[in-house]
Order: sequence, then C-alpha cells, then structure tokens
Amino acid sequence: MSTQPSKALESFPNPAAERDYEIRFEAPEFTCLCPRTGQPDFATIRIRYTPADLCVELKSLKLYLWSFRDEGHFHEAVTNRILDDLVALLSPRKLSVEGDFLVRGGIHTVVEVQYP
Amino acid sequence: MSTQPSKALESFPNPAAERDYEIRFEAPEFTCLCPRTGQPDFATIRIRYTPADLCVELKSLKLYLWSFRDEGHFHEAVTNRILDDLVALLSPRKLSVEGDFLVRGGIHTVVEVQYP
Amino acid sequence: MSTQPSKALESFPNPAAERDYEIRFEAPEFTCLCPRTGQPDFATIRIRYTPADLCVELKSLKLYLWSFRDEGHFHEAVTNRILDDLVALLSPRKLSVEGDFLVRGGIHTVVEVQYP
Amino acid sequence: MSTQPSKALESFPNPAAERDYEIRFEAPEFTCLCPRTGQPDFATIRIRYTPADLCVELKSLKLYLWSFRDEGHFHEAVTNRILDDLVALLSPRKLSVEGDFLVRGGIHTVVEVQYP
Amino acid sequence: MSTQPSKALESFPNPAAERDYEIRFEAPEFTCLCPRTGQPDFATIRIRYTPADLCVELKSLKLYLWSFRDEGHFHEAVTNRILDDLVALLSPRKLSVEGDFLVRGGIHTVVEVQYP
Amino acid sequence: MSTQPSKALESFPNPAAERDYEIRFEAPEFTCLCPRTGQPDFATIRIRYTPADLCVELKSLKLYLWSFRDEGHFHEAVTNRILDDLVALLSPRKLSVEGDFLVRGGIHTVVEVQYP
Amino acid sequence: MSTQPSKALESFPNPAAERDYEIRFEAPEFTCLCPRTGQPDFATIRIRYTPADLCVELKSLKLYLWSFRDEGHFHEAVTNRILDDLVALLSPRKLSVEGDFLVRGGIHTVVEVQYP
Amino acid sequence: MSTQPSKALESFPNPAAERDYEIRFEAPEFTCLCPRTGQPDFATIRIRYTPADLCVELKSLKLYLWSFRDEGHFHEAVTNRILDDLVALLSPRKLSVEGDFLVRGGIHTVVEVQYP
Amino acid sequence: MSTQPSKALESFPNPAAERDYEIRFEAPEFTCLCPRTGQPDFATIRIRYTPADLCVELKSLKLYLWSFRDEGHFHEAVTNRILDDLVALLSPRKLSVEGDFLVRGGIHTVVEVQYP
Amino acid sequence: MSTQPSKALESFPNPAAERDYEIRFEAPEFTCLCPRTGQPDFATIRIRYTPADLCVELKSLKLYLWSFRDEGHFHEAVTNRILDDLVALLSPRKLSVEGDFLVRGGIHTVVEVQYP
Repeated sequence: MSTQPSKALESFPNPAAERDYEIRFEAPEFTCLCPRTGQPDFATIRIRYTPADLCVELKSLKLYLWSFRDEGHFHEAVTNRILDDLVALLSPRKLSVEGDFLVRGGIHTVVEVQYP
Repeated sequence: MSTQPSKALESFPNPAAERDYEIRFEAPEFTCLCPRTGQPDFATIRIRYTPADLCVELKSLKLYLWSFRDEGHFHEAVTNRILDDLVALLSPRKLSVEGDFLVRGGIHTVVEVQYP
Repeated sequence: MSTQPSKALESFPNPAAERDYEIRFEAPEFTCLCPRTGQPDFATIRIRYTPADLCVELKSLKLYLWSFRDEGHFHEAVTNRILDDLVALLSPRKLSVEGDFLVRGGIHTVVEVQYP
Repeated sequence: MSTQPSKALESFPNPAAERDYEIRFEAPEFTCLCPRTGQPDFATIRIRYTPADLCVELKSLKLYLWSFRDEGHFHEAVTNRILDDLVALLSPRKLSVEGDFLVRGGIHTVVEVQYP
Repeated sequence: MSTQPSKALESFPNPAAERDYEIRFEAPEFTCLCPRTGQPDFATIRIRYTPADLCVELKSLKLYLWSFRDEGHFHEAVTNRILDDLVALLSPRKLSVEGDFLVRGGIHTVVEVQYP
Repeated sequence: MSTQPSKALESFPNPAAERDYEIRFEAPEFTCLCPRTGQPDFATIRIRYTPADLCVELKSLKLYLWSFRDEGHFHEAVTNRILDDLVALLSPRKLSVEGDFLVRGGIHTVVEVQYP
Repeated sequence: MSTQPSKALESFPNPAAERDYEIRFEAPEFTCLCPRTGQPDFATIRIRYTPADLCVELKSLKLYLWSFRDEGHFHEAVTNRILDDLVALLSPRKLSVEGDFLVRGGIHTVVEVQYP
Repeated sequence: MSTQPSKALESFPNPAAERDYEIRFEAPEFTCLCPRTGQPDFATIRIRYTPADLCVELKSLKLYLWSFRDEGHFHEAVTNRILDDLVALLSPRKLSVEGDFLVRGGIHTVVEVQYP
Repeated sequence: MSTQPSKALESFPNPAAERDYEIRFEAPEFTCLCPRTGQPDFATIRIRYTPADLCVELKSLKLYLWSFRDEGHFHEAVTNRILDDLVALLSPRKLSVEGDFLVRGGIHTVVEVQYP
Repeated sequence: MSTQPSKALESFPNPAAERDYEIRFEAPEFTCLCPRTGQPDFATIRIRYTPADLCVELKSLKLYLWSFRDEGHFHEAVTNRILDDLVALLSPRKLSVEGDFLVRGGIHTVVEVQYP
C-alpha cells in the first residue's frame, strides 16, 4: 500500500459479518479548496457505518481523505461524494458522513448525509 | 453578487437532489433592534434543512442575516420571518430555524420554528 | 407596565399562530423562601412552550418570577404553580416548567412539570 | 425529625397529584463499605420519579442515604435496595435510581434501575 | 482469585434477577497490539448490559481486559471478541461493548457492538 | 445561634494560628436590591483569607450574606462592605472579596477587593 | 439619562476611594463596521480597572458601547479608543481593555491595551 | 501492610533525592464527621510536595485518609492535621494540603495550607 | 492585494504607537507537509505581539499562512520561520509564535518561540 | 530507524540554536508495570524543553516511551528516569517531565521533575 494521496480505498473482510454493529471515524485533518475562490477550506469528517461483508481499511481511508487536498469541492458536494465512494466500496448496511466545516463569512456549516 | 446587506437570498442546484440529507448553519453574528425600545438585540441563528432541488448560497445568507441589523423585530416574529423567507426560496423537504437571543431582564430566550 | 414584582403576567398575540413552534426561557434569577424554615431557596426556572393564540410578554415574566421572592413555597408546589399560571394565561398547545434548585442537605433537586 | 442516620424515609402529600410530573435528586455524598474487603466505596446517587399520592421528604432522604455509611453493600445490590425502599414508601408512577460509583481497579461502574 | 491477566471471567448471581436494570462499566486502561505492525494500541472500553441470572465480577473483568495486553487484535475484531466472551459468560438480556481507540493516522476510531 | 438573617458574624479561634494558610468560600446564593430601581440583583460572593487569631464561623457567614436580601446596595459598595465587616471581625493577615454579579444591560460585572 | 446610543460616558464617586480594588466588565454585545469593507464586526469587550475618585456608571457604559454600532473602526484602533475614553473620564489608577473579535479569514483576533 | 484504616503512614526512600521535584496527589474519597452535628462531611484532598529523603507510600496514604471516616474534625483543623502528619513523616522540602469540601449552607469551602 | 497564497506579508501604521499593547491571533487553518514523508501536517498557529511602528495586516497574514500549504517543513523549523518573517516585517517590541500540531505517533507537539 | 520499542533516543540539530524557545510533547499512550504487583499502570507523559544544540526526534521518542511497556517502575522513579535519559541525550537548556498516572486506590498521582 502506497503512502501517496489516493482515491483507491481498500477494504478487508468484516470479522463479525453475522452481526449488526457500528464503526465510527472522526478525521479532523480534512482540507480541500473552494471551487469558486481557490482558497483552502478545512473540515472534520465524521463517518459512521454498519458493515456488511467488508470494512474500510484505516490507512487507505487516511490516504483517501488526503487526496482531496488539491481539489476544488463545494461543502454539499464533497460530503455526498465521500458517502458515494464509501458506499460503492463497502455496500454497507448503513453509512453516514458528516462534514463539519470551519467558519466562512461568520457562519459555521455542517453537512450530514445518510445511506440508505 | 454585492457585499451590501440584502434580503435577496440566492440559491444553487442541490448537487445530490436524489437523496435526503441535512445542511446545518450556525451564525453567531446576528443583531437587530428591539421594536419597542430601539435598543440592539443579539442572537445566534441556527438553521438546519433538508434540501429538495435548491440549496441556499452561503454568501447571500450572510448578507441576508446582516440585512436585519437596522430593523426592529420581536424575537418570536424575526425567527418565523427567517423561516418563511428560506422556505419561499428553497421549497425544502424540511427546515428549522432557532433564534438564540442574549439575556434581557435576566432571562435567556430561544425561539425554534420548524417546517413543515 | 410597572417595574414592581407582580403576579400579573401579560400576553401579546402570537405573530405566527398558524404554526407550531417552540419558545424557551431560562431564568437563573429565581429565589423564594422555604415554607418550613423561612430560609431563602434559589433556582433556575426553565420554561418551554408552544404558543396557541398568545405569547407571554418578557418583562411581565421577569416581574412575575420576582414576585415569589418573599413568599414561602415548596419546590414541588412552586414549579407546578408557575405552570398553572402560565397555562391559565396562555392556553398554550404545550408548556413545561423545570425548577432547578441549588443544593440543600447535599442534594440537588430538579422538578419538571409538563402540560398537557 | 431526628438528624441521625435512619432508614425511616418520610413522605408528604403530592401537591399536584392530578398531574404526571418528574422530580429528580442528585446526591454526590453517598458512601458505604465493600462487603468483601470492608473498604469504603463512594458514589453519586441519582433518583428520578413521577409521584402518585406521595413525595419523599428531602431531609429524610438525606438521613436515609447517610444510613448506608457503615454497611457493606455490593454496587448492584445497594442500587436495587434504594429503589425498593423508595417504591415501598411512595408507590410512585415511575421511579429510577442510578448509582454512579468511583473508580475501582481502573473501572468506573454505573448501575441504573427502573420501576416499573 | 489470581491477580494475573486471565481470560477466565467470573460471575456472581444477579441480586435482582426479577427486574430489568442496567450496569455500565468504563475502562480507560485497555491496550493491545496492532496485528499488522506489532505497535501498541490504546482504547477505552465501555460495556453496558442488562443481567439475566448472572453479573460479571469486577476484579475478573479487570484481569480479563489486562489479558489482551500482549496480543495482536484489529479494532473491529477485539470489540466483537469482548462482546462474545461476555455473552458466553452471562447470557445477558442485553449487552453492548464500545471500543474507543486513540488516534492513528489522524483518525479517531470507535467500534460499537450490541447483543442481541 | 439564630437562623434568622443577621449582620452578626461570629468567629472561633484559629486552630493553627502559628501558620499562614488560606481559607476560601464561594457562595452563589447572594441577592440584594438595586438602590436605584429596587429590582433584585444576584451574585456569587467569593471570599479568601489568611486567618490571624480568628476564623469566621460558616453558619453565621451564611446568615450574614442572607441579611443583604432586602437591602439596596451598589455592586461596588456592597463588595467593599463585606470586606470591611470581615476585616473588622477577624483582623486577618490577608482577605479578599469578589462579587460576581449576573448580567445587567448585556454586561457582566465583577468587583474584587483586597485587604491590606 | 437617555436610552439612545451615546459617547457621553457618566461617572459616580468611588464608594471606597481610599482603597485599591478592581472592577471588571465583560460585554459580549459589541458590534461596529469594518472601515475597509463596511461589513459588520462583532466582539466581546472586557474592561478591568482600579478606580481612583470615579467609577463608570453601568448604563452609560452600555450606551457608549452601543454608540459604535454604525461607525467604521479597525480592531486595533477601536480597542485603544475605548481605553482612551475611559481613561479621560475616570483618571483611574489602572485600566485595561480587551477586544476579542469573532473570526475573519479563519483568524481569531484579540487586542489588549493597558493603562498606564 | 494492613488494609484497615490507619494513621500509620509509611514512607520509602526518595529515588531521586539529589533533585528537587514535585509529587501531587488528588484524593476525592475523603469523608469525616462534623464535630458539632455529627453529620458526615465530604472533601477532595489535594497534596503536593517536594520530597527530601523520603516519599509517602501510596497505599498507606489511602488507609490514612480512610482513618478519618469516623472522626469529628473541623475543615480548618483537619486540613492542618494532614499537613502536620505528612511533614512529621517526610520532613519534605515543601508540602501543601488543600481540603476542598462539598457545599454546606449554600457555601463551598476550600482550605489550603503550606509548609514551610 | 491578491487572494493567492503569498509570503508577502503587509503592514500598516500602528494606530497607537505611543503605547505598549498586545495583539493576539489564533489561526486553526494551518497545514504544511512533512519534509521526510511528504504527508500533510496540521496545526493551529497562535501569534501574540506588541507592535512598535507597524501592525501586520490581517488578510495578508491569512495568505501568508496559506503559502505553507505545499511546502515541507519540520515543526520546530516552521514555527521559528514564522517568527523570523514577522519580526523582519514589523520590528515589534515583543512577539511570540506558538505552533500547536495535531497528533503524530500518539504524541501531541507544541513549539513556542519568543522574540526578543 | 526501527519500529521496535527501544531506549535508543535519537536527536537532530536544533534548527534555531541561537534562540531560546520551548518544545512541548504530550504522550497519553504510556504504560508500564507496577514493580510490586506486576499490574499495568497507565500515564500521560508531558515533556517540555528548551533545546540547546539538539532536538529529540519524534519517532524515536515514541519508541522510547513504548520501551517501558514490559518493565516494572515506580511512578517517582520512571518520571525521573525519562528526564535523565532526555537530559543525557540533549544537554538541553531546560527540560521538565510530568508523569500523570491514572487512579490507583482512589488517588490520582502526578510527578513533575525539572532540569536544571
């Protein structure tokens, strides 16, 4: 596994696939660019999911979140994108992504998306 | 888009309109005037909504909240007004507004309105 | 309107009577007397209600809470009394009162009453 | 009423027996002995109940909690015992007791019992 | 009972088996090894359960958690393992285990498993 | 000793008069009246002192603070008054009084006086 | 005394002028305009001073802080201006002003000025 | 070493006696009786010291603090007593004891004693 | 002034150069790269200074901090670098920079540099 | 550099050796064994130092702290040991180590050592 930023999320078999349980990640080191101004945005990304057959591998998740660093994304779109990519990888029973963005124009924005 | 206070809220197309998800804003920089005494009131405005076809544009929201600065409004009325304006703009699936006002007469007041 | 303590709560017409919404007050400046010992008790009074046709006026609420200052009341009774008075004034859709009293005998007491 | 530790809880008539409402106590001054080692245990006891015809008198509750000071009790048993004694006294509509014990062996234990 | 690390959990009869109630433990002193790198991981383990006929004995729980110290376990697997062992011992009415792991790669992970 | 409000502070001999040490009190149950408007003010009074030959008795301090309940006092004056009364009683080595008053006109006021 | 915004600060005689003591105000309801962009800025103003012969009157302080609402001021300049005005009024023994401004451009700014 | 409450504090040789360094203990499980009323008092005891040739042994400190459980002591006296006993045992370079007592009569008391 | 990342800090004349006062900035949106691994690091940068003739302009400070985004820097070096650049620009009376970096390898690092 | 636990701390040249500045580490993942009972102890280790010619390398510090995992150490001794090892490596201008240990016997212990 590389240590370069990469959209290539990896998975491993769920060690308790017969059971519904929840895995939660909080990643305060997310940054991307504003597609309108090119200025950097910063967010904490919170993911919670109930795995089916697969779990997301932690190091590949770190590299995946890093891969947005030089890309332009709107708050609403990037939060939905992360959910879509994780759902495509994992086919989870449930999954939600919360993007909690630092203040812009005196306003603090949080976007929360749920699957299904 | 101007940088003057303005009631003209702007929208953009929801990037994930096929899905129910939630967007939350917290704006601690709201001030208006008491319609009875003319003295300034201060509040944090919290908005949460599930967009349908449209999302509210962040900068126009900032200018919209700014536009109340020199107007007289009762706590109960201004919180309902903000909800009405956002609903008219967005036709959202769900939307709530919470006005959290600083202490007057030793009493801290919060008004919370929900649509639908 | 006087600035003397007074049980005479005042109301004004609900500016959004067609809609269910919630108003919350937190008043940390409540004091009355213990009916058994005559010693002062202190509490924070929290009120939340969904108005029907009427809202309670904030200044009269302050004077109302002040009016208990020289009266003897048990914790359980005074919290119910405040609810009764507000319900009689407002005929609200919903209303709750929480009396959160400072420590007596090493014990912190909270009384919470709901209507209906 | 004595000021000696005593299991003799006292009650008074509920001043609003026609209505369901909640009374909550938090008592951080509870201590008893470990029945196995004889060493002291410390806990915060949290009680919440909906009275029927009777309320528990606050000073007798203080003396009641004090009465466990020199007695040996397991965490699980003493929390159930406090619930049983209060239910026997009050025949309440609902009542819960939470025993929140200080760390033993690096583990923090909480026991929560509900009636009915 | 030994004071060596041991997977041999012990139980005692539930003192109030006729009633549903909850026991919660928080153990911040859990450490095991990463099975991939051999490096130590640290977690707080939170357990909450409703006992049936048996309760878990606190000292044996401490020794049980200690017994993972020199073993390699993935986050998802070890949290499920603790749940399985406790369920096998206690046949509880309900039981959940939360493994709250310290940051790795800038990401904070929590795994929460529930029975049944 | 009475249980009525009283300015009659009582003292007892310092049990360790040969040594400089500090005693601190925090009393969140202080209320008096605004001398201009007659409306109630609320404060937390914090006292710290190094006793010489005498210590202030705790129950008399409670009754002393209670005695201001129906009196009109400016923030600055009442804080100095409490210091003067305690210094007159105790002739302490050092003593300070902090009056921490609840918000009036959107402004939170603290007055801190030190002796000598 | 008017209830209009006014730079006319008022004073009253220090009730304990023979003694050095400290008065502190925290006013979270300060707003002015950015002189470059015209957009509103928000700050908490903290004042602490040791009075000589005069104390500042609380209501006039509220109206004084209000008077900046429609004026353009840089952070550094307005904090120094408040200090200058209070020093001119009070000739205090010591006085400091802290302007704690809400985030602009992702940066939180505090300006603290002391006299003498 | 017994596991009974005991005033017999034990010491061990300071492993770094050539150096000034600080050891701090916080013990939230202290209780004794009020010598006037016989009712239990509760405190957190905080000890900080710079050892000379000896350090206090942790388990004996636990048993020492336990030994006050059935004794009557005034707040000021017991805090000085703990300091005296530790100084007699350790002849430390510096030592302080803080007794932080739970609320009585609406007042929270802290006593802090320092040696030398 | 551009809105591109830039090391070109700008200044403006100190509006109160005759007086020593302090300006503090907290910027939680700092990121650069690890020079060894190329992976992103995140930090909060805290700056406090006493201006002489010049103050740093806020927007240029934002662009300056942004300019490190694609550069490799060790924690110790980049904190010293920011101090050097600000001192070169401002010739301040005093200035300090604190770099507060997010956890790496289970360790949280803070670097604090002061001038002079 | 290995990724095995190791006492072999590594250093690198101080990038700003001409200046006094401070580096602080907080490492919450420290565990060793009690030399008397063999049971695991847990601590947060806080290090702050002013480098002279050398800085400690972060990864080697992680491996160094890990190396205590299977060793028996008293709280007072291990904290002094860490200071001694870092001083031997770095010959720093100033250095302190704080060992903040989790509760044992109801008592929370902190050991703080300073050089020189």
